[in-house]
Amino acid sequence: MAGRISLAHGEGGELTHQLIQEVFIQSFGHGEQARLDAAVIPCFSGKMAVTTDSYVVDPLFFPGGNIGKLAVTGTVNDLAVTGAVPKVLTAGFMIEEGFPVSDLKKIVKSMAAEAETAGVSIIAGDTKVVERGSVDGIFINTTGIGAIGEKDLNPAAVKKGDAVIITGTIGDHGIAILSARQQLGLLTDIKSDCASLNTLLNQLIQQTEGIRVMRDLTRGGLATGLVELCEDFSISIELNETSIPVHEEVEGACEILGFDPLYLANEGKAVIIVDSKEADKVLQLLHSHEFGKNATLIGLVASISEKAGKLKLKTPVNTTRRLTRLSGMLLPRIC
Amino acid sequence: MAGRISLAHGEGGELTHQLIQEVFIQSFGHGEQARLDAAVIPCFSGKMAVTTDSYVVDPLFFPGGNIGKLAVTGTVNDLAVTGAVPKVLTAGFMIEEGFPVSDLKKIVKSMAAEAETAGVSIIAGDTKVVERGSVDGIFINTTGIGAIGEKDLNPAAVKKGDAVIITGTIGDHGIAILSARQQLGLLTDIKSDCASLNTLLNQLIQQTEGIRVMRDLTRGGLATGLVELCEDFSISIELNETSIPVHEEVEGACEILGFDPLYLANEGKAVIIVDSKEADKVLQLLHSHEFGKNATLIGLVASISEKAGKLKLKTPVNTTRRLTRLSGMLLPRIC
Repeated sequence: MAGRISLAHGEGGELTHQLIQEVFIQSFGHGEQARLDAAVIPCFSGKMAVTTDSYVVDPLFFPGGNIGKLAVTGTVNDLAVTGAVPKVLTAGFMIEEGFPVSDLKKIVKSMAAEAETAGVSIIAGDTKVVERGSVDGIFINTTGIGAIGEKDLNPAAVKKGDAVIITGTIGDHGIAILSARQQLGLLTDIKSDCASLNTLLNQLIQQTEGIRVMRDLTRGGLATGLVELCEDFSISIELNETSIPVHEEVEGACEILGFDPLYLANEGKAVIIVDSKEADKVLQLLHSHEFGKNATLIGLVASISEKAGKLKLKTPVNTTRRLTRLSGMLLPRIC
Repeated sequence: MAGRISLAHGEGGELTHQLIQEVFIQSFGHGEQARLDAAVIPCFSGKMAVTTDSYVVDPLFFPGGNIGKLAVTGTVNDLAVTGAVPKVLTAGFMIEEGFPVSDLKKIVKSMAAEAETAGVSIIAGDTKVVERGSVDGIFINTTGIGAIGEKDLNPAAVKKGDAVIITGTIGDHGIAILSARQQLGLLTDIKSDCASLNTLLNQLIQQTEGIRVMRDLTRGGLATGLVELCEDFSISIELNETSIPVHEEVEGACEILGFDPLYLANEGKAVIIVDSKEADKVLQLLHSHEFGKNATLIGLVASISEKAGKLKLKTPVNTTRRLTRLSGMLLPRIC
């Protein structure tokens, strides 16, 4: 097929057919379950989790991944932290006229490879093409469906003293994107942490007891993710700043650029709130896995009440300050 | 909140939180089923249909609808023609910095209203904001999940002589969009036919026998939709051109502009292939419904074989020509 995407590739006619055959079916397969307008799959039993995310990351290719890999890992992780086993994804592509077909193929191949790694099938898709200047390159939406098994999270059981664990270092994705944008003149070896955490987190739910809630940390970083947790479950959390794992290079880049790693995006990290009695076992399991080897206990649930909902940070000099959501603009199009 | 969307509304921090509270939850509700990262709902029994579609229509507001209404009807219809009862939708918004909040509210309200009409819940969402010029206004992705009941379509039973029925006039959406673009100087009263067909089609499946397959006709129009059906099910169809219902104004606009209504987009029309013995009953049921009142028998399945797969059109002068997929560019960003 041609070297660049044209408007006619999005018109639903002959060229759309060709694009689907030569790019999408090539990587994703046709699927037994495909009917013309929708995919048909057997229902799971129990409950299902459904999530959607659009990816507009700039640049499209960055150290450690690209928009296609990210579009799979991000949605897989949203399902995994909800306690679900991710099963199927849909993919919607919005492409700019003139976009190189070779880049599209690379992106689609990354999606297929990451879907295989995560054990999910991409069962339905859609492509739109818009005029030059009406979208910046390519945006991708993925929507995911997962099955919640008999062993579920138990947020209602959260209690004072519960452990707050993070699965690894924070801020890697944010700094990798900044570095890829080059205009900031930042040279680091930091790669995005984007990874599918479902195998790790599903295993954790199956092999331990007392996991209350999990959350993946994307836009807004660790601080914003925990503030939302605190508000949603009426708990207060106290973090210990010196315990929070940060790559030396991320720390260095943050100092130069004036960023706070607590607010930088991550794409392969989750926080886990668990009964303190099980914390050691959870850490041990995390440490045995590639994506959990830097897992650390970073804080505790300090109180529970209608009036709770606060995130506090104990600093190295033993003072305590309250953390709020990210406010104002830090890094647009980070994912 | 502010009058225009800013990049910070898409950062996942305080302003994103405000946008979700004041615009999305206001219209869509919070939902009992919402967890932080995904919605959790009971699984259906049997099979489920899953479909995804992104909407990039230009202009955003047009006679008969807007991008929000379209994003619901389009995805609902993809599920309905698959034989499913649409149950839930997700909504992903990609918004340009500077987009008027008042327009966003109008769009979101239309989505909520149409979802109510169609009987579906919008259970999960996502918002991204990109810099001015990186997207044209707003794009919306909706992904839908529906339940396939015990009574399903039966494409395997399709046979020679089966009736091909269309639920109403063709080309209305295409001409409404062209007319709304104004630059074509086209003045007609034609409104987009965008409508949720699920009640009509679900009822049809329940109350009749012998429905083989259904298809909604969007990009590429009636001709492209039927060519795909012919190829996918190895059947040949012969259409009777004089039977195909077209609004006089659509016919007139097509003559002036040189368009063929057979290739114009529709957003509230389906073709139904049904056992000829049941055709009268199907037409009768369709005629009793607002969205089926102009339903017409437009052709027959002419042959079935590995070598079939052709769409033929009998013209008013009794010659027969073969119709192919839409080729080349007709109307970008029609949906």
